[in-house]
Amino acid sequence: MNGAEALIQTAVAAGVDICFANPGTTELPLVAAMDAVPGIRSVLGLFEGACTGAADGYGRMTRKPALTLLHHGPGLANGIANLHNARRAHSPIVNVVGQHATWHIAADAPLNSDIASLARPVSAWVLSSQDSSTLADDFAEGIWQAQQPPGNVATLIVPVDCLTGTASRTAPPRIPPSPACPSEERVMQAATELRRFGKSVALLLGSQALCARGLKVAARIAAATECALLCDTFPARMERGAGLPAIERIAYYPEEAIKRLSVFSALVLAGAPEPVAFFGKQGMPSFIAPPGCLKIALSHPNEDSEAALESLADALLAPARGLSSPRLQPSRPTGPLTPRSLAEAILSVQPEGMILVDEAATSGLPHYLLSAGAPPFTYLSLTGGAIGQGLPCATGAALACPDRRVLAFQADGSGMYTVQALWTQARESLNVTTIVCANRSYRVLQLEMARMGMKAGPQARRLTDLTAPVLDWVEISRGLGVPATRADSAESLVRELETAFATPGPHLIEAIL
Amino acid sequence: MNGAEALIQTAVAAGVDICFANPGTTELPLVAAMDAVPGIRSVLGLFEGACTGAADGYGRMTRKPALTLLHHGPGLANGIANLHNARRAHSPIVNVVGQHATWHIAADAPLNSDIASLARPVSAWVLSSQDSSTLADDFAEGIWQAQQPPGNVATLIVPVDCLTGTASRTAPPRIPPSPACPSEERVMQAATELRRFGKSVALLLGSQALCARGLKVAARIAAATECALLCDTFPARMERGAGLPAIERIAYYPEEAIKRLSVFSALVLAGAPEPVAFFGKQGMPSFIAPPGCLKIALSHPNEDSEAALESLADALLAPARGLSSPRLQPSRPTGPLTPRSLAEAILSVQPEGMILVDEAATSGLPHYLLSAGAPPFTYLSLTGGAIGQGLPCATGAALACPDRRVLAFQADGSGMYTVQALWTQARESLNVTTIVCANRSYRVLQLEMARMGMKAGPQARRLTDLTAPVLDWVEISRGLGVPATRADSAESLVRELETAFATPGPHLIEAIL
Repeated sequence: MNGAEALIQTAVAAGVDICFANPGTTELPLVAAMDAVPGIRSVLGLFEGACTGAADGYGRMTRKPALTLLHHGPGLANGIANLHNARRAHSPIVNVVGQHATWHIAADAPLNSDIASLARPVSAWVLSSQDSSTLADDFAEGIWQAQQPPGNVATLIVPVDCLTGTASRTAPPRIPPSPACPSEERVMQAATELRRFGKSVALLLGSQALCARGLKVAARIAAATECALLCDTFPARMERGAGLPAIERIAYYPEEAIKRLSVFSALVLAGAPEPVAFFGKQGMPSFIAPPGCLKIALSHPNEDSEAALESLADALLAPARGLSSPRLQPSRPTGPLTPRSLAEAILSVQPEGMILVDEAATSGLPHYLLSAGAPPFTYLSLTGGAIGQGLPCATGAALACPDRRVLAFQADGSGMYTVQALWTQARESLNVTTIVCANRSYRVLQLEMARMGMKAGPQARRLTDLTAPVLDWVEISRGLGVPATRADSAESLVRELETAFATPGPHLIEAIL
Repeated sequence: MNGAEALIQTAVAAGVDICFANPGTTELPLVAAMDAVPGIRSVLGLFEGACTGAADGYGRMTRKPALTLLHHGPGLANGIANLHNARRAHSPIVNVVGQHATWHIAADAPLNSDIASLARPVSAWVLSSQDSSTLADDFAEGIWQAQQPPGNVATLIVPVDCLTGTASRTAPPRIPPSPACPSEERVMQAATELRRFGKSVALLLGSQALCARGLKVAARIAAATECALLCDTFPARMERGAGLPAIERIAYYPEEAIKRLSVFSALVLAGAPEPVAFFGKQGMPSFIAPPGCLKIALSHPNEDSEAALESLADALLAPARGLSSPRLQPSRPTGPLTPRSLAEAILSVQPEGMILVDEAATSGLPHYLLSAGAPPFTYLSLTGGAIGQGLPCATGAALACPDRRVLAFQADGSGMYTVQALWTQARESLNVTTIVCANRSYRVLQLEMARMGMKAGPQARRLTDLTAPVLDWVEISRGLGVPATRADSAESLVRELETAFATPGPHLIEAIL
């Protein structure tokens, strides 16, 4: 047995079952090991951002660490943007990054670079292996670190001689760590505050508190206290739709968020960090809760937020059921495509149990606002602001949940970042429907310029405009193996969506806005 | 004047004239400043790897630093692979990376990350600005650092409040530093060695020694001493073709390179580092010169290699002219496309003064071997092994040299990494002809597996094969705005190339191998 085989055996024993890979020469022993040791499905991405984003989507849906296989510093670097998003989403991921043989590093051959320096900003744990005989232990530690609640990115740098050298044993699986119980004292403090100031308290939900069970308990607490139910602007994963309480996302623009939060005298944080402005604006604070607002951390993101909410509901003698959204699907829209009619088109035909990956940017908000009564669905958003997350994340979510439909709700500018993910969807015959919201601009930047009072001169127009030439998403998608059509009205979008949802495999619809 | 305007004024005064950008909200003040202060051409890339790769190509052709404009850590990360190549090519580049306002960093908002940790592995110089009043000085220092011979990647991290805050002055331009003169002692040592062992000495050329003047002096030295003329496997830039001496590239596979170098008793290094194996192989050394081989550093990469070679030629009383390759263009090939007929097809119609960007990987070598007598052309190669360099580098080279034709000689696997660069070629109407060598596999990995004696099982096949689905490069290219055609024979490739070379603007040819 060589180190590579010991590593893969250790992965399989720990329940790791998928590897998103773009290997190079250095990683070939691991490729061979995946053939020698069955149990891991290898999925090729044509660019590493497609691999790491897919691992993020897979982790959000399964809570199991996926493996990524990346080639030296540049291969890791190509995956960093989506690892940044994964880190913010607390997705469990173990990156295996190939490196030159230990004895070859000092020669500073062309591919050599400081991989650890690249890995640290996106990794809770980084280790460079030194020996084939301990590689399996190193890797087991990586899995263990990735599993630390609420989930971590772990990066193991593996010199090729550790893969090809002899290994005498694998590392035994460990029982994945459980999230810590929240403190009784904080539960009591939250209960006191909610009893006293119910209406002027916001319960801010994050992380596991946004699962169906967490949301239902939160609804009971709201029923008992009239508190508001809020969540972060960009939740990693949230259940939503009929039968669940509607959760209000904190606004993206700080002035709106600050105004909304100003009515609260206390924030109870359940699995959520203290809210901050996405971008700091001159004259506005970084921390957007009002001055003097009491902040009670009911549960930290790494604690058991569902249990914390249940303890809180019990302490409040909350009713057995809270308010939930009634089923409400809009009828099929007609007329020109706008962000609103686009949202209605999706909602009018949205299948039960859909996973919606939202990187629609300025075109996406209406769907969220109108979807409280939709057939229950899972909502995944762009957690870290590193664009290019949507198509890869949808790819990973579809691999995690083959029985569910995935909708990649995608802006055109950010979609171009990791367009290579479409090919993986085609290769793996994944049930992903992509809507590209083709407004043919970096609209968010145009809006920001207007908000800042900047006059857009010729250079600003050239740097925010995506016409000249127009991107033809239908051709790009077909070129990557994914069937594609175009919709330029709400009727045609509904029709194309119905066909796509009823057809196995991926499909892309370019929605002309 | 705000900091952003002071920065752009400083850039213009220093002769920086182009900015490869994908800005985000944070960088909008710089976008506005490029409108307020004329003199910089802004070029949008739809992915940061397209921007940094273009800056590399621009720097290789002009030796002037290009500016890149990148959004936070993830935007930089997306550009790191091509900055890695640029670092190996010694291309002068100044990256400006937007960061949160100084007072907002501590809030750890979603986009926040350790940008400096990401920048260091690819940058000779990294600085985080702290104040708008000193931003112009920081930036001038960045330009100065990028201009240090033989060229550096410099990265300036700019918090947004340094861009929007007041600046009272710009920084004056400095005279770019000149490369140091090589030591007379090393010239004399090299002359002695060459006189004694002429035939068994290799003159290894790198960096500026590969310019036309350097090559012609090297030919004189070879004429005087019968030494061999070699260069690195992956030179950043080399002049080649009729009228110049033919330079032998050191082989990629270490066993071949070691065998070739074993005949030499001395290596004279002119602007080249000591040769190392691209990948270290068990049982083979990292440093591939034979044991006991004398290594004389005639000039380091940061020294004036042309002057060093001239001193050496003078010391050797070398003839006024050395051997040069006679003009030799193959006739138009016919029959199926192979790497060889592909090379002949290019060579049969290759225009004078072409710039060839070689990321053709396993399909590329025959062109190099057959091109010694081609119409003089400039050869740029994949210096750092980070794939995805070809299309962006060609984009930057075409912007640097609008009067020359650029041929992007591109493998399909690596081409997919930064395919977004095609759109920039279309937007800027660049005279780039791309040949995609569609062998529909990561052929280099399949060859490596065979060399390692690995049996390719199903997982290995899936991870190295690019069929299922086949990439349709014609559709992808057209979708990105670049006219495209397909060639499946040598005749049709010749025909398509002739049309492309005679037509302004970009064109892509998918060559089916």
